[in-house]
Amino acid sequence: MRQPKIDAQRLWDTLMALAAIGATPGGGVCRLALSDDDRRARDQLVRWCEQAGCRIETDAVGNLFARRAGHDPRAAVVMSGSHLDTQPNGGRFDGAYGVIAALEVLRALDDAAVQTARPFELVVWSNEEGTRFAPAMMGSMAFAGLLGVDEVLARTDADGLRYGDELARIGGRGSGLGNRRIAAYFEAHIEQGPVLERERCTIGVVTGGQGQRWYDLRLTGQAAHAGSTPMAGRRDALVGAARLVDALRRIAEAQPGGVATVGELHIAPNSRNVIPGEVRMTLELRHPDDRLRDAMDAQLQRAVHETTAAEGLQAELKTVLVQPATAFDPTLVARVRAAAQAEGLTHRDIVSGAAHDAIAIARVAPAAMIFVPCAGGISHNEAESATPEDLAAGAQVLLRAVLGACDDE
Amino acid sequence: MRQPKIDAQRLWDTLMALAAIGATPGGGVCRLALSDDDRRARDQLVRWCEQAGCRIETDAVGNLFARRAGHDPRAAVVMSGSHLDTQPNGGRFDGAYGVIAALEVLRALDDAAVQTARPFELVVWSNEEGTRFAPAMMGSMAFAGLLGVDEVLARTDADGLRYGDELARIGGRGSGLGNRRIAAYFEAHIEQGPVLERERCTIGVVTGGQGQRWYDLRLTGQAAHAGSTPMAGRRDALVGAARLVDALRRIAEAQPGGVATVGELHIAPNSRNVIPGEVRMTLELRHPDDRLRDAMDAQLQRAVHETTAAEGLQAELKTVLVQPATAFDPTLVARVRAAAQAEGLTHRDIVSGAAHDAIAIARVAPAAMIFVPCAGGISHNEAESATPEDLAAGAQVLLRAVLGACDDE
Repeated sequence: MRQPKIDAQRLWDTLMALAAIGATPGGGVCRLALSDDDRRARDQLVRWCEQAGCRIETDAVGNLFARRAGHDPRAAVVMSGSHLDTQPNGGRFDGAYGVIAALEVLRALDDAAVQTARPFELVVWSNEEGTRFAPAMMGSMAFAGLLGVDEVLARTDADGLRYGDELARIGGRGSGLGNRRIAAYFEAHIEQGPVLERERCTIGVVTGGQGQRWYDLRLTGQAAHAGSTPMAGRRDALVGAARLVDALRRIAEAQPGGVATVGELHIAPNSRNVIPGEVRMTLELRHPDDRLRDAMDAQLQRAVHETTAAEGLQAELKTVLVQPATAFDPTLVARVRAAAQAEGLTHRDIVSGAAHDAIAIARVAPAAMIFVPCAGGISHNEAESATPEDLAAGAQVLLRAVLGACDDE
Repeated sequence: MRQPKIDAQRLWDTLMALAAIGATPGGGVCRLALSDDDRRARDQLVRWCEQAGCRIETDAVGNLFARRAGHDPRAAVVMSGSHLDTQPNGGRFDGAYGVIAALEVLRALDDAAVQTARPFELVVWSNEEGTRFAPAMMGSMAFAGLLGVDEVLARTDADGLRYGDELARIGGRGSGLGNRRIAAYFEAHIEQGPVLERERCTIGVVTGGQGQRWYDLRLTGQAAHAGSTPMAGRRDALVGAARLVDALRRIAEAQPGGVATVGELHIAPNSRNVIPGEVRMTLELRHPDDRLRDAMDAQLQRAVHETTAAEGLQAELKTVLVQPATAFDPTLVARVRAAAQAEGLTHRDIVSGAAHDAIAIARVAPAAMIFVPCAGGISHNEAESATPEDLAAGAQVLLRAVLGACDDE
């Protein structure tokens, strides 16, 4: 047995071969969940895994597993993967990188003729993006018991097509769900944020996912003529909304580690000459510590109350998502950190700002993630970009972490 | 000769008869410029004026004049009127009131068998709203030499129909333009603002129109993932825009008599999960004193500069309209004030926040306006409402002012 080592060129070439499926003119990828291109990508991946001698299995919601046997067939598996579906204007790395990094781990283990104690499984979670069928992370959430099978299969897309029918159409429907004991789940992913690049750091040791609270807010004031309505007595819904955008920014800036954003805002009647009578907007805040996120939330609710009262606005604040913070498994996180260290790579602990399959899986198994930088932090965009060197470094860290977990105890 | 007096019931009945032309189910009026309903309204008005013995004339852009002769056919005329076209969801009083009040003046002069020294002309200015054919106040602007005839006739609506063709189609096209010496122009109008109602005042003695400056602003930041982009280093176009909305509000509040509004705002990509990378918005500020409006403007420009620099945004600020303040003729304004006093009506001086035909006419002739209250200050809306008593009071003030101007010198 040689010391296993991932092949940077093979990793890159395989990623680029995958990126050709659903490639867009702008250099990105459009591979919506359960589309023909999703089928082609799954089929290609199955061929690669079969060439590596894996046994393939799919479950009732379309998650795909490729198993490399270990000494002990009854041992809990070490698993790694991500997703193959993309945003409509997606990039070449979001999801695909985690799947192909796991494939490269498989291949590197074969190259070095390593036999692990535990089995190793590559996984492709179905419909992570949630663009065609909502919500996001459907496959991993169902696996973790957070969504029912029937619920998943009954979801429809904008054309009224059912998830279950489309899954059967592309030949991706198997049986069973969640029937796996997982000793460790690792997911490699591009950061989708600017931190690693800004700090010239190659590996993000992901310690967990932020807690989130998402709101919809409707502010109602009084539309009136912009020229003939004096300032005193105006009930301008946009002035209220603007002060909340500012307040939310200040709340997040005052709470280290927190983020908060207004991403969507619609005003009515939206005419140059008319004081806005209504604003609909989203507000969201996130923090890795639920207690601190709740503190931010309390400040936000106070700001909504005070700001709208001052402007004479009616406010309808509706929670649309609450998600507690996720702490990844400390042993696995330490394993990733040690692997980066052993490889001599710059690294830092980081909290995932985005949601990932690993965050769902962490509910039912020890999980951890490995981030690599992406240019400008840009993702969900055809311009998404990462260097072959960083991608190889991340895969090498994954390989070390997987090996350690496979031969643990 | 009896002392002339307007007939409140006849004024109201005539207004309601006019409001039936283009009436909407919601109790308002839709009578777009040069539409079939505009033609019906013009034709009806012509019949009423001819019944009152007037001579009718139309000019090259469709302005309509109904002349009641005076002693001296060569004397400059006293003129009063407004417009018959409405917003798509317009009310029964905006424009229509000024025309029918002038008709009621004609009728009251006839009832009392008054012969004035100067001729009196009722005028209907074509396309005041500017909704179907931009810009607004087209007929009065052309009359005042602020727009060329060819320019007006060549304007097209959303269906590509030409103003000139549509005017000919409804039989409204005459010849000549601006060939009238005007001794005094009076226009009665609902306030379209809340001041008179709020102060329980029946007559607004309009001293002039505000100066205006309108801007388009485009702010460019960096769109990025709302979850994975730390607060430090964000370039959030909406945060910049929000701070400008707030700054503009404060600038206007600090300058008594001034108003300022952001009425239109578009953000991109406008997705809950993404930091807004771009905002396009309008900004407008108005003040009756051009010097003070310029001071507000300087503060706004400083705010744009400072706010966008602080957030790392690019700003493109484009002026789309500059209009100096209009001071109405002091003699005519005094005449209106004296008429309100003589009628024993509560009154106050007021500056028009909205634009009106009288503001264009003031460039070429002595002009003044009379405002009456409208419910809640609401206008450009089917819910537009005014009481028969207030409308009659305004018409009575108009009659007194017209009489005084007709027999002046």
